[in-house]
Amino acid sequence: MRIALDAMGGDFAPAVTIEGAVETVNESEDIEIALIGDEPSIKRELSGKRYPPTRLQIRHASQVVGMDEPALAAIRKKKDSSIRRAVELVKNGEADAVVSAGHSGVAMAAAVLMLGASEGVDRPAIATLMPTLKGTFVLIDAGANVDCMPENLLQFALMGDAYCKTMFDNPEPKIALLSIGEEDTKGNLLTKEAFKLLKETSIRFIGNIEGKDIFLGNADVVVCDGFIGNIVLKTSEGLAEAIMRMLKREIADVTTGRVGYLLVKPALRNFRKKTDYAEYGGAPLLGINGTCIISHGRSSAKAIRNAIKVAAQFAQRRVHQIISEKIRNLRKGGEKGAQV
Amino acid sequence: MRIALDAMGGDFAPAVTIEGAVETVNESEDIEIALIGDEPSIKRELSGKRYPPTRLQIRHASQVVGMDEPALAAIRKKKDSSIRRAVELVKNGEADAVVSAGHSGVAMAAAVLMLGASEGVDRPAIATLMPTLKGTFVLIDAGANVDCMPENLLQFALMGDAYCKTMFDNPEPKIALLSIGEEDTKGNLLTKEAFKLLKETSIRFIGNIEGKDIFLGNADVVVCDGFIGNIVLKTSEGLAEAIMRMLKREIADVTTGRVGYLLVKPALRNFRKKTDYAEYGGAPLLGINGTCIISHGRSSAKAIRNAIKVAAQFAQRRVHQIISEKIRNLRKGGEKGAQV
Repeated sequence: MRIALDAMGGDFAPAVTIEGAVETVNESEDIEIALIGDEPSIKRELSGKRYPPTRLQIRHASQVVGMDEPALAAIRKKKDSSIRRAVELVKNGEADAVVSAGHSGVAMAAAVLMLGASEGVDRPAIATLMPTLKGTFVLIDAGANVDCMPENLLQFALMGDAYCKTMFDNPEPKIALLSIGEEDTKGNLLTKEAFKLLKETSIRFIGNIEGKDIFLGNADVVVCDGFIGNIVLKTSEGLAEAIMRMLKREIADVTTGRVGYLLVKPALRNFRKKTDYAEYGGAPLLGINGTCIISHGRSSAKAIRNAIKVAAQFAQRRVHQIISEKIRNLRKGGEKGAQV
Repeated sequence: MRIALDAMGGDFAPAVTIEGAVETVNESEDIEIALIGDEPSIKRELSGKRYPPTRLQIRHASQVVGMDEPALAAIRKKKDSSIRRAVELVKNGEADAVVSAGHSGVAMAAAVLMLGASEGVDRPAIATLMPTLKGTFVLIDAGANVDCMPENLLQFALMGDAYCKTMFDNPEPKIALLSIGEEDTKGNLLTKEAFKLLKETSIRFIGNIEGKDIFLGNADVVVCDGFIGNIVLKTSEGLAEAIMRMLKREIADVTTGRVGYLLVKPALRNFRKKTDYAEYGGAPLLGINGTCIISHGRSSAKAIRNAIKVAAQFAQRRVHQIISEKIRNLRKGGEKGAQV
């Protein structure tokens, strides 16, 4: 597997992206990485590091997209940006997948524009893993599409279903629609219509799910529009961090707390690990002709390493082709999707 | 202050509602409570309890609305339900405020239909308090309106502003719009339009806020539509509970954990208290001609007690009249709200 890594993407790039890449090639013999970005910077970061040179190459790109640039303008104007060049390698067949921790809007737009949406997919979507009491669930769409139609949500569900089956060997993922009540009459205009469409499919649609229940682990896939998905994702991230900070403060405030803290510290560390985005590595963009993994801007070397592994597995299992087939079958099966 | 309490509303009613009422009248001499509901049940719960009988009266209502009944049908058909009778007391001037921990959709609909929306308010909205690292913020709308127009969000902001000023003596609350990026170009169609309207007001609009930042405490009011608000509220509730469960499990799993747990327990208790909805008591429905406090279905006696106090303070400070004046001024000031 050959992965194109946007070496300049992310808050701590290129140091952590290159560290992550080096660790990966030293660890996994079947992975080759093309580091795309400013060659002098990359060489500087690589100097002194040991790695198999045949499996870690540099491809110079003279431009970098900043985190605050408007996405479409950045793609159009910066023809030699690291993210564009990275996606190009996938387009030309020189790489099997692209990984970027840079500006996620730009990475998404570049992947959609340059690789194209899969046949039949109206809106590619981001599938993010989130922790539950039992394991994880897939949140789709986590931010690619802010304004959606019911048909988009239907496609997100089908893509999430195919993703769970192919990547996690889950033979019959439970798919739920994020809403404000379990009954099919609860929701907004969008979810009420999407509910009707989902009922007609042959996926295991378990109905609406409320925000309070998503962490219990009863749904494998939670479907929503990208605006809400992004808010749910970010709110959860912010709350988990706030809770840990509040807890630490409370612990420091009680007399017995300091000793207690030392004793529960291993537990807190385990907990952190379970809820750490770095463990999941990155989120695939589903519904495009190729493999594109979007990583957190604050990615550590470990997060990059895990993202590269996710990318390799995604490409190796041909997830994007399987998703494309599912959606084509849906289209053939008629509007209601009864044949899926 | 005279509070009409829906004695039959809530998962643990009438036991906890009546316990909460008794505690309140024993504690606060300036509060009178009318307990509305099934007289025999209420009398049974009251028997053996000590309280000043002049400040705790019973008003019989023969019907109860179940938690799963469709809201409008329940209001129309059950003319003698405890929630309808409770709202009626406010309408007739026999009570200053109504409190219910029952079916929130029914309580809202009854309040809006029977008391009416304030002049100029298109959509009354629920204002819920949520904890932050620094204190609390007001989330509006937390679930009353699932599909909104930009003008509705503008009104939510103005109502939230007036609420903070009047109830919390905050002279210049910071108002933010919940979105997926800080720049004004980030958001969905609804929030982008609402952003433009909010910029034109004279309230202290601090722009978009992302989900990850709402718990930092930099915004006093966070504005969104009721579908998203409800999802944010419930997701936060679910995540906080999941985190505590995961932490307990992790602590139990490590050797030093059990002793450590005992030592950090007071800290966990303090933390729980800060994030406990029971501390906030209930959420007011803003933008109606009267005071209506919606409490959590799982309300404890303490939550009921706090809700009654919130109701008394809300009514005493004439918050609903002040909100109504603000919105009327906005209307007079022209479409853009420049005079607010």
